[in-house]
Amino acid sequence: MNVTVRGRTQHFRSVTFDRAQNTVWLIEQRLLPHEFKIVATQNFRATASAITDMIVRGAGAIGATAAYGLAQGAIAFRGRDLKKFSDHVEMVYQVLKNARPTAVDPVNAINAVRAAMRTGATVAEQQSLALAAAEEFAREDVRHCEAIGRHGAKLIRNGMKILTHCNAGWLAFVDIGSATAPLYAAQAQGKKFHVFCDETRPRSQGAMLTAWELAQQKISHQIIADNAAGHLMQRGEIDLVIVGSDRTLGRTGEVANKIGTYPKAVLAARHKIPFYVAIPLSTIDWNLKRGSDIPIEERHESEVLGAWGMVSNLKSEIRNPKFVRRAYVRVANPTSGARNPGFDVTPAELITGIITPVGIFKPQELWKRRRELGFGD
Amino acid sequence: MNVTVRGRTQHFRSVTFDRAQNTVWLIEQRLLPHEFKIVATQNFRATASAITDMIVRGAGAIGATAAYGLAQGAIAFRGRDLKKFSDHVEMVYQVLKNARPTAVDPVNAINAVRAAMRTGATVAEQQSLALAAAEEFAREDVRHCEAIGRHGAKLIRNGMKILTHCNAGWLAFVDIGSATAPLYAAQAQGKKFHVFCDETRPRSQGAMLTAWELAQQKISHQIIADNAAGHLMQRGEIDLVIVGSDRTLGRTGEVANKIGTYPKAVLAARHKIPFYVAIPLSTIDWNLKRGSDIPIEERHESEVLGAWGMVSNLKSEIRNPKFVRRAYVRVANPTSGARNPGFDVTPAELITGIITPVGIFKPQELWKRRRELGFGD
Repeated sequence: MNVTVRGRTQHFRSVTFDRAQNTVWLIEQRLLPHEFKIVATQNFRATASAITDMIVRGAGAIGATAAYGLAQGAIAFRGRDLKKFSDHVEMVYQVLKNARPTAVDPVNAINAVRAAMRTGATVAEQQSLALAAAEEFAREDVRHCEAIGRHGAKLIRNGMKILTHCNAGWLAFVDIGSATAPLYAAQAQGKKFHVFCDETRPRSQGAMLTAWELAQQKISHQIIADNAAGHLMQRGEIDLVIVGSDRTLGRTGEVANKIGTYPKAVLAARHKIPFYVAIPLSTIDWNLKRGSDIPIEERHESEVLGAWGMVSNLKSEIRNPKFVRRAYVRVANPTSGARNPGFDVTPAELITGIITPVGIFKPQELWKRRRELGFGD
Repeated sequence: MNVTVRGRTQHFRSVTFDRAQNTVWLIEQRLLPHEFKIVATQNFRATASAITDMIVRGAGAIGATAAYGLAQGAIAFRGRDLKKFSDHVEMVYQVLKNARPTAVDPVNAINAVRAAMRTGATVAEQQSLALAAAEEFAREDVRHCEAIGRHGAKLIRNGMKILTHCNAGWLAFVDIGSATAPLYAAQAQGKKFHVFCDETRPRSQGAMLTAWELAQQKISHQIIADNAAGHLMQRGEIDLVIVGSDRTLGRTGEVANKIGTYPKAVLAARHKIPFYVAIPLSTIDWNLKRGSDIPIEERHESEVLGAWGMVSNLKSEIRNPKFVRRAYVRVANPTSGARNPGFDVTPAELITGIITPVGIFKPQELWKRRRELGFGD
């Protein structure tokens, strides 16, 4: 999507591959929203580290980064010995696979690249196939997000006020995003609307990333405390909710997403406000039978007990502050601890529809439509 | 309640009066939870400034502070001329009345003190009556909180997990608090339970003040993000919710309280978890006919866009940080704005009961019991 740097607006993807330099270019997401910087990873180990160190984050984005990393590692091989090449590729594969062990997208991505390479008869052919497969993986991610946008934009009417939670934006994919895709598509169609971004404590992805994306894209928006959506719904100030999903159960239509999603779904149902979940097909889990079986990661309590942001060095911080340094502030009582579940599960009955690349479905319909949705591919 | 300073546990009230020095002693609440400090205001102007500058906050606490302030100002008068004295008291009254113009408690408090003074025939008598009335105002605040605790403690059983939102603790009153009163009373009865404190963004009163109170009182507790309560309720980890109230409508039973209260009430109702509101009688509004008529203060967006806390001066803040300085960090995207409603309104149907000093009532019963609840006093 568009980013304006020093007055100049350019199109960026979260990850791109430079063939001439055999280099992966990434947006340094840890510096956002306070600084926009592109970093180059010049070999597959640096690319794997960028995934581990969360320079790049988000399912689609780390999938494409891993795919490019495998192509990059394969291309770096010098020689014609297929056996040695194959050993080298296996080593690269393992490094990338272990970059973020619990994520499934990088593994799916590098499996796709490795499978594509197998039809090549020579090292050079396999190198070329690896790159083509990685590019195709990234292109497909973009196509899927475009399709989500096409379907989802139909839900957006002029003058609507739309609530989002967390960041399922283009930064989390190669481009466009899932929950943001309908917004970008509706904007391209000339529709006018306003977005409320849930701050999304404790990591504030809504305030930091979604708000940054929408500001860059010049979409009207405001950040709200996670506490405020109920009041806004009561006063008729929210017409539509669109969120993303970390895992959607194909058998039940239950949606695991960032902590705080479920309360918004409960409130939306009470106020009869449509609640949609936008997902790429890769996040559908066709195996798990119950949402309550989804393991909910308990994250470090420091996230809840304080906040990261830019701090001023000036004594007088209220008037005209200059924010110069990234810092963690301890907000909470120093002798108290915290619970910090990272995700929650929203039952199908609270979800108006699931926006997928192949159309919008009732969550209860997913299983019936599993062929269409790619189950068994 | 108890506060442990340098290993020594002492009993404190949020405000006390030192007769010998004609001085008001206040807990400097702006430094909590990171520093515990008592400040003296040595004349009524300093006392009024302490209310204005939020050294002291919370309905009961600022009421008692204003009452002491009026007594303090009256006592400072030298001479026997009743007319001059009366002019002086009127001037003191106006200064205190304007200390926080939208709050009702200070006005009620100084009205009570002024009314009590009228029966005195001499300056000395009126000074003495002023002090007695201020002390009575503070004592009554404590008695009411004790009574809330007595009634509310019956709801708490061994092993319960209790959710609170914001701070309606003893810091907001003279002692004991409203929403915290049942907790302290149950603890005194030897009951064991665990409290989840909602962080309560954007001002984090739950993480900063309620958690500090509970830690000082050695009550088992953890802070959670405001987003997390839904998930905990789903997993059966919350048995009871107790919150305070800024304004309760006597005619409808609707409750205005800190933003984020309403979503918790909606979630509690869905999960059939009892949801109680603890209130002193002074917060009941017998006039207003509809909760939607309650004006909701829109606060400054900087509260949502960042956070106040203690910052470290060390480069390496993660391991073993030393937090040395209070600072504001800007968390959100720098080019985005925020909406910041301060309160929301919870309808009576979602409230299991209102815990008052005279008993626990269904919210719909308040009007019927208005004589008992002090309407018309």
